[in-house]
Amino acid sequence: MTRRTVFYISDRTAITAETIGHSLVTQFEHVQFEHITLPFIDTVEKAKAAVDKINHTAERGNRPIIFSTLIDPDIRQEIINSKGFFLDFFHSFIEILEEEFHTESAHAVGKYHGLVNNSAYQTRMDAVNYALVNDDGATTKDYNRADVILIGVSRTGKTPTCLYLALQYGLYAANYPLTEDDPSGQLFKKPAFVSTYYQKLYGLTIDPERLQAIRTERRPGTAYSSLKQCQFEIAKTESLFLSAGIPYLNTTTMSIEEIAATIVHEKNLPRRV
Amino acid sequence: MTRRTVFYISDRTAITAETIGHSLVTQFEHVQFEHITLPFIDTVEKAKAAVDKINHTAERGNRPIIFSTLIDPDIRQEIINSKGFFLDFFHSFIEILEEEFHTESAHAVGKYHGLVNNSAYQTRMDAVNYALVNDDGATTKDYNRADVILIGVSRTGKTPTCLYLALQYGLYAANYPLTEDDPSGQLFKKPAFVSTYYQKLYGLTIDPERLQAIRTERRPGTAYSSLKQCQFEIAKTESLFLSAGIPYLNTTTMSIEEIAATIVHEKNLPRRV
Repeated sequence: MTRRTVFYISDRTAITAETIGHSLVTQFEHVQFEHITLPFIDTVEKAKAAVDKINHTAERGNRPIIFSTLIDPDIRQEIINSKGFFLDFFHSFIEILEEEFHTESAHAVGKYHGLVNNSAYQTRMDAVNYALVNDDGATTKDYNRADVILIGVSRTGKTPTCLYLALQYGLYAANYPLTEDDPSGQLFKKPAFVSTYYQKLYGLTIDPERLQAIRTERRPGTAYSSLKQCQFEIAKTESLFLSAGIPYLNTTTMSIEEIAATIVHEKNLPRRV
Repeated sequence: MTRRTVFYISDRTAITAETIGHSLVTQFEHVQFEHITLPFIDTVEKAKAAVDKINHTAERGNRPIIFSTLIDPDIRQEIINSKGFFLDFFHSFIEILEEEFHTESAHAVGKYHGLVNNSAYQTRMDAVNYALVNDDGATTKDYNRADVILIGVSRTGKTPTCLYLALQYGLYAANYPLTEDDPSGQLFKKPAFVSTYYQKLYGLTIDPERLQAIRTERRPGTAYSSLKQCQFEIAKTESLFLSAGIPYLNTTTMSIEEIAATIVHEKNLPRRV
């Protein structure tokens, strides 16, 4: 199997370089990659040190790949002169866009993942706080602010999905657990809950076998993690979703990103960030 | 001011298209953008519906910009034939990489933000759970698993940074608040805490004026949000960091992404995702 080292180089966080770089290299299943991120390369001196690393890797074997979002021309030129194979995410597109818009771009470092828009940023932070306070049915008194209320049994991905919705999209996402022995019994026993929040509800379900595997990692050998219990809870859940007409998603083979993007898409939620 | 509509089109979540697209358009300060994300365009029929939207926008004014990560050639061709200005994040680089690697890529949809690597995915979910359980000093008994323990006074960004470290990098991040009236007084009063966890500690600080503004939004007119109290806590915090030799960061003008990436970089933490 071919081995290649991939460098993600940026003058700021390198998150953009990592995101698009990863999405490209995962398409090559027969190449084994070593990933090295070099963020905050914001001086020519740091660029020279990065070039040393790249050239050292190049001398040990195959030509390293460089995914760059560098903006500063002098810093960028240092890296271009290295022995790596330079792929330029920024300049490849920015010049085409400048021509299309008939205007020069700011060429300013850290515009995207920096604190450029204070009010959007505050919204995200407020949304994260909202997700934490409204996690796992801890309270329902602030549901009027919710963009969406996720419901489902334990370990269907409700909590991480709510946090991702807050961080990525600035959405106010609460979640309420469906439990057989729910003391307040609001969901399974009180249809009023469903009718009150109907417009905001979105269900998560999962294959019972997968649920059993996830629960077994947490509490092996308990009734909670038995296949019988998982089958019972999922059957009850899906029957509720169907009878009440609540939209829902089977999360068995989905990542948090996919679950979140699907919910935003299907419920037509605003992107606040 | 020029107005342009930007379409982010993907066969999956469109998160990659949004990330790189946003990083490019934020460089154009004199263009006002309307953003439309069209995720899950995974059939030719859906592509035709997307083309209708693009062409409808084109007829109302300036040519829309299309940021695409589409992989399927037939779906992609539909969008290319629209009246939008097509920028191709996937094919622009994948063909260059195929040549460099002397191998064809999988051209498989959803490789990156999908559930491709189950163990890395479980690590992330476990890390999110860890961040929640170990938030705000709720417990210290599982600190042996922590990659990093953030310390700082209330509202310096500890919680969202820990959640981001978990979701983005799969890191185990705990946080412990520095409070003047900390009942256990572990940090300000017990140097043993610092010496025990010294290797894992990372401090967050912030300008007192900014802290006051953030706290005032939460609890206006209280001692907690007074400038005097904020100045006192920050002075005490920074004095602790300096005297104990704890690395720290002033988060005043930083986003969560920048804080997280800086911590990963400075503490040389592994990227588990």
